Amino acid sequence: MLERCFGVRRVRQIQRAARHGTVTFLCLFMTVVVLRGTIGAGKFGTPEQDFNDIRERFYSHNRRVEPHRVLEEVETTAAAAQNDNADSNNYATFDISKILKDEEGGADEKRDPNAPYSLGPKISDWDEQRAGWLKQNPNFRNFVGPTKPRVLLVTGSSPKPCENPVGDHYLLKSIKNKIDYCRIHGIEIFYNFALLDAEMAGFWAKLPLIRKLLLSHPEVEFLWWMDSDAMFTDMAFEVPWERYKDHNFVMHGWNEMVYDDKNWIGLNTGSFLLRNCQWSLDLLDAWAPMGPKGKIRDEAGKVLTNALKGRPVFEADDQSAMVYLLATGRERWGEKVYLENHYYLHGYWGILVDRYEEFIENYHPGLGDHRWPLVTHFVGCKPCGKFGDYPVERCLKQMDRAYNFGDNQVLQMYGFTHKSLASRRVKRIRNESSTPLELKDELGLLHPPFKAIKLSS
Amino acid sequence: MLERCFGVRRVRQIQRAARHGTVTFLCLFMTVVVLRGTIGAGKFGTPEQDFNDIRERFYSHNRRVEPHRVLEEVETTAAAAQNDNADSNNYATFDISKILKDEEGGADEKRDPNAPYSLGPKISDWDEQRAGWLKQNPNFRNFVGPTKPRVLLVTGSSPKPCENPVGDHYLLKSIKNKIDYCRIHGIEIFYNFALLDAEMAGFWAKLPLIRKLLLSHPEVEFLWWMDSDAMFTDMAFEVPWERYKDHNFVMHGWNEMVYDDKNWIGLNTGSFLLRNCQWSLDLLDAWAPMGPKGKIRDEAGKVLTNALKGRPVFEADDQSAMVYLLATGRERWGEKVYLENHYYLHGYWGILVDRYEEFIENYHPGLGDHRWPLVTHFVGCKPCGKFGDYPVERCLKQMDRAYNFGDNQVLQMYGFTHKSLASRRVKRIRNESSTPLELKDELGLLHPPFKAIKLSS
Repeated sequence: MLERCFGVRRVRQIQRAARHGTVTFLCLFMTVVVLRGTIGAGKFGTPEQDFNDIRERFYSHNRRVEPHRVLEEVETTAAAAQNDNADSNNYATFDISKILKDEEGGADEKRDPNAPYSLGPKISDWDEQRAGWLKQNPNFRNFVGPTKPRVLLVTGSSPKPCENPVGDHYLLKSIKNKIDYCRIHGIEIFYNFALLDAEMAGFWAKLPLIRKLLLSHPEVEFLWWMDSDAMFTDMAFEVPWERYKDHNFVMHGWNEMVYDDKNWIGLNTGSFLLRNCQWSLDLLDAWAPMGPKGKIRDEAGKVLTNALKGRPVFEADDQSAMVYLLATGRERWGEKVYLENHYYLHGYWGILVDRYEEFIENYHPGLGDHRWPLVTHFVGCKPCGKFGDYPVERCLKQMDRAYNFGDNQVLQMYGFTHKSLASRRVKRIRNESSTPLELKDELGLLHPPFKAIKLSS
Repeated sequence: MLERCFGVRRVRQIQRAARHGTVTFLCLFMTVVVLRGTIGAGKFGTPEQDFNDIRERFYSHNRRVEPHRVLEEVETTAAAAQNDNADSNNYATFDISKILKDEEGGADEKRDPNAPYSLGPKISDWDEQRAGWLKQNPNFRNFVGPTKPRVLLVTGSSPKPCENPVGDHYLLKSIKNKIDYCRIHGIEIFYNFALLDAEMAGFWAKLPLIRKLLLSHPEVEFLWWMDSDAMFTDMAFEVPWERYKDHNFVMHGWNEMVYDDKNWIGLNTGSFLLRNCQWSLDLLDAWAPMGPKGKIRDEAGKVLTNALKGRPVFEADDQSAMVYLLATGRERWGEKVYLENHYYLHGYWGILVDRYEEFIENYHPGLGDHRWPLVTHFVGCKPCGKFGDYPVERCLKQMDRAYNFGDNQVLQMYGFTHKSLASRRVKRIRNESSTPLELKDELGLLHPPFKAIKLSS
């Protein structure tokens, strides 16, 4: 806040100018961004540069390459169904041992370079351990209804203030949005601020965290990971838990794109459901080896780029690694993985945010799909980071719209709505009543059946 | 974020300098603050100045006067017990009608100036309405355990980004802190971003919000209001609900200071418990009349300053109004009000934050009192506002310490702790186990009995 010493007034005027986004200014700004991007922000960095970079990468996949991804996602979404002309053979097999050899004597390596990376001591009997615990603790049921599992939504952000000061405000709106959805649906929240394993910094940090939470909370049946740049835009949609009773891992994606095309955006790891069981621990162990920072992650990145369709050259990311793992090990994992595309467990913002008015006009909350997306995920916006892959103005404007679109479904319970999708202000939509319990809210979200179940005896 | 156009590097250097707080710079900064305070920030303001002022005031009580309050709180806390030499007679009676008369034709008044302000249509049979609803909806029990009520914690902040950019980061830490306490204790959270009634802006905005939530959620037995600048510092302390079975309104405070001294800091309204019942609706109706912005609030402020001990001259605030209401109407309200001082339902930060190391050395979480405070409330810090009543550096440093002090109790569940109360970084406190369910966390917070009750059949 101290830059106000240089005069808030000037800064504010510029911010206002920017908000109303004169072309001239945007050009200037983008020029600066591009220039600095070219020179390398490192030169301008603080001592925490590394940590910042980690932090920046943590909250979106593949910072440098969203545009490609975007184009592809738009193209492939439609094409996915009949698309199956894949070059199935032409990819390398990831030889972890070789890379670990190269790693020997690496000064920046903390752990024994000969030991392959591990998320923790091997556990093979988790299902038994967990079942025993659940038997001994009947008051911590893993199902809170006949078919409704106990769910823990896990998200998080850096413990440091955002590089981009406005970023923290959007993180705040994002968690308020999740608090609302989770209160309505009887889901608990864990917000993470800690980097549990420095080696797994960046978009890999969720793996040690998820393992830790599964092992600490046997009462949790499903863990729902959600990136901090994803917001709930359908407060009424309840996940069809019944549908996943025979599966352990649910992501938004398409079988053809993953197993046939090996397309690096055939699935998205920004919002997924993972069952608390031995299979999931095994999956995490198989997912993690490409994660360790430095040579391993860099080498793995080359393997992934070589193996996957459409993937640009950059270090290994968790999403590409998952596509690779499934594409190369379908027989081991495929049976228990559910690639969901009947509703937006993850919904790419670029193809959704301009259609909110259309949704409002033609549809209603509770659909969760292309008519009213459950989740709008601001892939590549990184409001907390220094540079996103899209113009900051567009990202922030659209994040506000997404937030308000979702928030209107919360406010309607109490008789209010935003003056517009662009406005923070609210207005009444009905008069106060002296018999408030007689009027039911339109969406029935005040006391939804799926929540009632939660507390039934 | 656009001020980076002037060069992030320079801003950052200054920020670093500020963090390490050279006396020179602090002096310069405070001079600027004081100077600008004198000139009046309005001159530097944006069109949203008014809204900002409202916003700033919303999240602390009595912006201009904390220092007095602080001194008094420290003095009186000790003296409270035997202190009862009050000037019980010498105060005016608040003539709302007279003020409303003056208000007639006031251009800025939206509602009928002849009608006294009301939070909503009069409701006299809420207990019957609510009982009927609870009977019809057995799956939404108002008690989730034999003596454990269903509780909704309500907090919030402005829908606008903070004036002081770092403020949003502290709001984020503050809600993460509340999410943790509430998950551990089986409490639901409502985070408010909306100004439901423009007339009740500022520290009065919580009244219409609270009424709305009580009437919308008959299943909620107790509503827990907590300011955004208050943090949980004892994650293990469960509120002694049994103790309040015959009371409807619980605040931190002292009977002597309120009823005898009429001291304006005899209680604190930054963290309180309110039962969902007719009595509480009546209390809100009796509490609200001094709230309407403009002449009413200004005139009421004079009445309060004249009536209450130690209150400086400024517009009516919700806390002073409550002291006044109780002091002048003990027979009407006193019986159902519990002024709690055996633990810190609200704890003034100034007398706590420097003693965390002492607490850690001598005591343990779960006490909630002067040995390990349940809540540390950063009265007067307003990290989100332009100017607080304390040096920004001290506030932020201490808010970080309070957050980490509380967060260590969360991290210990998972085998981690902050490297120090001043550090965001975490370190392991035990090795990973292959039989994680065998080790119980020290504080038993992973599966606490008071939470188990919640889901028992």
